[in-house]
Amino acid sequence: MGAPFRLDVPVRTGKPRRTGLTHVLDKGMPVALAAEVLETCGPYVDVWKFGWGTAYLDPGLTPKLALLADHHVLGCVGGTLLEVAWAQRRVDDLLAWAAATGFPCVEVSRGAPAAAMGVADKAELIALAAARFTVFSEVGSKSPGFPAPAEDWAAEVAGDLDAGAAWVLAEGRESGTVGIFDESGEVREKVVDAVVAAAGIDRIVFEAPSKDQQAWFVVRYGPNVNLANIAPAEVLGLETLRLGLRADTMSLSCPVRR
Amino acid sequence: MGAPFRLDVPVRTGKPRRTGLTHVLDKGMPVALAAEVLETCGPYVDVWKFGWGTAYLDPGLTPKLALLADHHVLGCVGGTLLEVAWAQRRVDDLLAWAAATGFPCVEVSRGAPAAAMGVADKAELIALAAARFTVFSEVGSKSPGFPAPAEDWAAEVAGDLDAGAAWVLAEGRESGTVGIFDESGEVREKVVDAVVAAAGIDRIVFEAPSKDQQAWFVVRYGPNVNLANIAPAEVLGLETLRLGLRADTMSLSCPVRR
Amino acid sequence: MGAPFRLDVPVRTGKPRRTGLTHVLDKGMPVALAAEVLETCGPYVDVWKFGWGTAYLDPGLTPKLALLADHHVLGCVGGTLLEVAWAQRRVDDLLAWAAATGFPCVEVSRGAPAAAMGVADKAELIALAAARFTVFSEVGSKSPGFPAPAEDWAAEVAGDLDAGAAWVLAEGRESGTVGIFDESGEVREKVVDAVVAAAGIDRIVFEAPSKDQQAWFVVRYGPNVNLANIAPAEVLGLETLRLGLRADTMSLSCPVRR
Repeated sequence: MGAPFRLDVPVRTGKPRRTGLTHVLDKGMPVALAAEVLETCGPYVDVWKFGWGTAYLDPGLTPKLALLADHHVLGCVGGTLLEVAWAQRRVDDLLAWAAATGFPCVEVSRGAPAAAMGVADKAELIALAAARFTVFSEVGSKSPGFPAPAEDWAAEVAGDLDAGAAWVLAEGRESGTVGIFDESGEVREKVVDAVVAAAGIDRIVFEAPSKDQQAWFVVRYGPNVNLANIAPAEVLGLETLRLGLRADTMSLSCPVRR
Repeated sequence: MGAPFRLDVPVRTGKPRRTGLTHVLDKGMPVALAAEVLETCGPYVDVWKFGWGTAYLDPGLTPKLALLADHHVLGCVGGTLLEVAWAQRRVDDLLAWAAATGFPCVEVSRGAPAAAMGVADKAELIALAAARFTVFSEVGSKSPGFPAPAEDWAAEVAGDLDAGAAWVLAEGRESGTVGIFDESGEVREKVVDAVVAAAGIDRIVFEAPSKDQQAWFVVRYGPNVNLANIAPAEVLGLETLRLGLRADTMSLSCPVRR
Repeated sequence: MGAPFRLDVPVRTGKPRRTGLTHVLDKGMPVALAAEVLETCGPYVDVWKFGWGTAYLDPGLTPKLALLADHHVLGCVGGTLLEVAWAQRRVDDLLAWAAATGFPCVEVSRGAPAAAMGVADKAELIALAAARFTVFSEVGSKSPGFPAPAEDWAAEVAGDLDAGAAWVLAEGRESGTVGIFDESGEVREKVVDAVVAAAGIDRIVFEAPSKDQQAWFVVRYGPNVNLANIAPAEVLGLETLRLGLRADTMSLSCPVRR
């Protein structure tokens, strides 16, 4: 690659990461494209979520999971699929299927109003899933308009970890306009503070689909903040944000000199 | 694929579909990528529109049309290309070219102010095209700011069907902020009601590029509503909406139990 | 391809273009996908920018640059990478690396507040880079909120050209909501007029990521206006805008007949 060229950039954690996770949202991408994406940015991807119920339809599930394993990326069943299975009293079937198919992770959420899962139901589900899988729980409703107070977030986060979740996702959806964000996409700082206080920064993963949101978390919590709902095409861009190689976070690579 | 796992989901129509159409908008995608997309979600795609005038430039037209035929997907010339040909008095050339190239469908619209096509001109064009092609007509202006009253929409829809259109597209563009939507992307319900009354729900195809718009139509009209201007990368996501496998439409797979 | 079919469309410049440039923004795309994109729209792409600091991480740099050379497209190092190198006093290393790697172009910007580069520093950097590379300079801050007055833009544009820039980019970012645009994405016409007056339309390249912005420039300055920050997936779409084959610019292919 020619002459050596090194910049001073923040130190990043390596795989298998406990912090500094990049958690990607797959909406039903072709396997061949997933292979190309991972060829380019595999070292920066830790978790690959088959968004909501797409795993139920994706014809490339088996080769994709093999590909993810090759790149040391954890494949994860979306939380909505589990919510549907729960509402239809088929959780055991779903977990057996996920294990047989080769998923190392499942997400447990109670975000869909139609499922009407309670906090206690969710804790039970987390404990059940955690016996066989790495569990990402998710806190926060998927509906805008009636945001829960910060105390409720904190209590549910603590309960999820007690029940056996490895990490807790703070809801932002693919849109970045609900949960930890208001309808314009701005961060609801009180909620963020509350979940960090409840879980510690290492066990919270913030869903932050937009670049401005990602930059906000990187500037506030540093290069190794856990971030989720990253579009596959944005992984390399996020990595540059973490390293201070984009204008929005350049203070990380270029501290002010006086 | 491991243990059997089945959920209760709404019944979907199959190919060749008369209702439940998913009509995709191609903005000039590489052939190889189109092949990967169809490998993943071919069974859920019914029509593939070469958006506006892209068919005039796309170097992969012939292999793409062959690929679409293999997947039982109807390739369609964009309406704007026909509008330009009409304004330049070259409609016969365009239709001859489309037939020779292997397009089974053409779209007939009068959305571009520069073409200034009248309703009668359009009906004539539909009749001419319908002699050789499956015709999708389109109703609604592409310009924001002066939305037509619902009665005008209804009259034009009825006229298009009389002239020979197989289905009528209700305009929303790639942006989802004109035609049947206001500038913020909200559905203009009066217009939607009027076109459904005029044509029947089976012969209307709603252009609904955003997830919230798609969910609105699925909740209102059920899993087999016809939807258009779907991005190729969103087809599997739309199919999960139709099946109640995303939070926004989960009431379809999880009816409330009391 | 069947029957001959030709429309009257505006005359476009050809490669190597001095005007009518399409300047693409790569955010870290896989090499195989870049190859597919260039297969489809290579003749319409003139410059391929490795956005901000992505070139520092992109594992496909060498094959991508070879591919770009095959398609007569100029590969360009993003300006932010140079800003970081400058702030870390490693500009010579960066330029040596860029030359050895095979970049024909570099961008020189001073858009990141953290770098705090002055106008004179920038002119010096342009002169240094121009000895070995085709230089695109960039004018305009990447931060919203405090837009510079039009006179300041004009002075910096003139200074950049004097220092040796081949073209000057007018800042719009990937978002299209800063620099020459206000926060809603509307064009700041006074700034546009000032930079055109300072440089002449042929040497200004407008960053215009959204379709509405692209259409505005094409309608105002004609099919051969220089446009930048085009997403790879939108290149064919932009070419249809330039040729009057999309509703927004159809007046270019269909002048009003009276």
